[in-house]
Amino acid sequence: MKEENIDDQNGKLSRRTLIGGALASSLLYVGSAFGKAIQTAPPLIPTTPYDPTKKLGQGPSKLGKRSLFEASVRKPSDISSRTPLQDLYSTITPSDLHFERHHAGVPVIDPEKYELLIHGMVEKPMKFTLHDLKRFPSVTRTCFIECAGNFRTGKEEMTAQEICGLTSQSEWTGVMLSTLFREVGLDLKATWFLAEGSDAAVLTRSIPVSKGWDDAMIVYAQNGEAVRPEQGYPARLLLPGWEGNTCVKWIRRIEISDEPFMTREETSKYTYPVKDRIRQFSFDMDARSIITYPSYPSKVEPGWIEIHGIAWSGRGKVHQVDISTDAGNTWSTARLQGPVLDKAHTYFRHLWQWKGDETEILSRVVDETGYTQPTIKQLIDARGNDMGGYHLNPVTAWVVKRDGTVLFKPETYKS
Amino acid sequence: MKEENIDDQNGKLSRRTLIGGALASSLLYVGSAFGKAIQTAPPLIPTTPYDPTKKLGQGPSKLGKRSLFEASVRKPSDISSRTPLQDLYSTITPSDLHFERHHAGVPVIDPEKYELLIHGMVEKPMKFTLHDLKRFPSVTRTCFIECAGNFRTGKEEMTAQEICGLTSQSEWTGVMLSTLFREVGLDLKATWFLAEGSDAAVLTRSIPVSKGWDDAMIVYAQNGEAVRPEQGYPARLLLPGWEGNTCVKWIRRIEISDEPFMTREETSKYTYPVKDRIRQFSFDMDARSIITYPSYPSKVEPGWIEIHGIAWSGRGKVHQVDISTDAGNTWSTARLQGPVLDKAHTYFRHLWQWKGDETEILSRVVDETGYTQPTIKQLIDARGNDMGGYHLNPVTAWVVKRDGTVLFKPETYKS
Repeated sequence: MKEENIDDQNGKLSRRTLIGGALASSLLYVGSAFGKAIQTAPPLIPTTPYDPTKKLGQGPSKLGKRSLFEASVRKPSDISSRTPLQDLYSTITPSDLHFERHHAGVPVIDPEKYELLIHGMVEKPMKFTLHDLKRFPSVTRTCFIECAGNFRTGKEEMTAQEICGLTSQSEWTGVMLSTLFREVGLDLKATWFLAEGSDAAVLTRSIPVSKGWDDAMIVYAQNGEAVRPEQGYPARLLLPGWEGNTCVKWIRRIEISDEPFMTREETSKYTYPVKDRIRQFSFDMDARSIITYPSYPSKVEPGWIEIHGIAWSGRGKVHQVDISTDAGNTWSTARLQGPVLDKAHTYFRHLWQWKGDETEILSRVVDETGYTQPTIKQLIDARGNDMGGYHLNPVTAWVVKRDGTVLFKPETYKS
Repeated sequence: MKEENIDDQNGKLSRRTLIGGALASSLLYVGSAFGKAIQTAPPLIPTTPYDPTKKLGQGPSKLGKRSLFEASVRKPSDISSRTPLQDLYSTITPSDLHFERHHAGVPVIDPEKYELLIHGMVEKPMKFTLHDLKRFPSVTRTCFIECAGNFRTGKEEMTAQEICGLTSQSEWTGVMLSTLFREVGLDLKATWFLAEGSDAAVLTRSIPVSKGWDDAMIVYAQNGEAVRPEQGYPARLLLPGWEGNTCVKWIRRIEISDEPFMTREETSKYTYPVKDRIRQFSFDMDARSIITYPSYPSKVEPGWIEIHGIAWSGRGKVHQVDISTDAGNTWSTARLQGPVLDKAHTYFRHLWQWKGDETEILSRVVDETGYTQPTIKQLIDARGNDMGGYHLNPVTAWVVKRDGTVLFKPETYKS
């Protein structure tokens, strides 16, 4: 093949034509027209089909961005948005993908004007500015926050995000609430406190003082930076392992008392039937797990597949995650990613050789208290048929079809 | 006070005037003019000076954003950008604030077209797509990456970001390089491999095969999501604890050999004088620490101050961080934030009661090998006056002035 005919065979410009044309263009339209002619012409030297090294890249920037090829986002409704669990690796949720749940939108709060009032049964009622809060000894801990209503079902084409995407994990930094309790001088007869947000819903919850003395925090940082607006900027209450709703965001007031306040969010909401009774103040989030890969809408091929997902418990560390790849007949123990932290999403992995037959895959967590994640049948046996919408954590099954498609099994969420 | 006079006393509109005026406006300028009249009028009902609860907030969104009141960013030059260490809490660097250093910009790489070739002294040369890499058993580890040239000095008004902001930490997920070595069947006589990037610089480094068998990884995820473009999307080499430059980003080729390749980046660059000799292949990043609060430009008040900062070592875990608040005369041991991880930024904290006198505060790390962070004098004694620009990790002092301003002490970085 002659050199000048390299591209002619495809009906494109020959090298000679191109160079001549480019030179002519440069004489006629100095500058941009020349550049354009070169850019739209085929390459003079045959290169490999895809070679990013031939183009100078963009220079450094103030803030990084995701690749143009990545499109994972939260799934917003009018009251919440859900973390895309099926797209994530490991345990820290990127801050801009942390789930949201708020009752009157995200308030805009000027940190210079922010104040937290602590009053009621105390020696000395006090107001703390954000600057004040940051002067106290600080603590960092990694834990999940999960909405008590983190349960959706309905059809086979549902992602982990749609089913239970109201759980996320961050590295939180702030001041222990016990430090502030000592500062204001808590009355020894105090047993409950009210936490009040400065959103337009003025959301309030009653919390036992014992949790305040234990591991409660007022946090002002999330994943190394200021708490994000949707997660309570500039400061929120963090009650590790407890219902997300109790971790009051944009917290502005704590009132110390010797009885609960019976607010809307603990009477008409966040309570649920247990047979013939109503369960209230059920703070702990029960242990739960979900396989995030393979899961809808991923597609698999026969051979070795690394099953992975997250497991967590509001009562302590994840002790063990069992995996079944035969619809619950036999179970194997998954590997846990260390270090396993208290009240934290824990990543699990399990190697599975899929031979191509239709099957169901399931995960089941046991936490350090010995609590085992229940099946939906066990939940119904314990609570009755009308389970309400809170604290539902059944074992989740995915169906792997012969063609490699993976579907949610809604039956694992229904009586 | 009569109702209609509430605002008249201040020379403003009365309620009656306002409503009348607004209605008139709405008749004359339907729509926007009416809205404007209401917006510019003073509130009808006196409210507290600052109350975010009176406005419905924004609803849920696909991607979260930082608060409008937060403005921390990287500091870009033409070749790099630096992490704002002085603004961060705890140890994971938000992905969009991770430092950048590249030699020909950030390439745009289509993950569907990405391939990693492993060839040379192997039984079976192989190409791996991104999908292939993700099918192997995966591993997650948290560690820092630091540029070997992470050293700046000059004046008192310098931030931690400007002095040593070329270090950041992420939770990385990918496949162990040893897994891929087994897949291609490494020749037992192999001792070095070449790692080549697909940026326009086609950056290359020679790495001992022993590191590949030890803890090297090909990572495709960073902090739970896909690796960011500036950090090597869709995949990079991760050599925990080693010079950032060796952790080749956008990696496309690994060539196995029995000698180093003597590339530009290990001959004319990333080598430095040690008295009358040149030090080459100095991979390990030496232990270092820096106080990030208080530091320039923060201002402090007399009383209790929580000093905090980060310490790290490329050779293992941080064993201890010592703090001096009297210019190095006496030292105390700081608290370390757990869990302390291998080759990872470790957060330290130390409570200090400042009485208001001018002083100097310093931090000094000891790693688990017993290595102690040197002073600049010790570095010069060991290396001679011309230390080059690589692997400089001296103890850093901040001067606290009587008025509470905090300044860098450039002398701690100079002979």
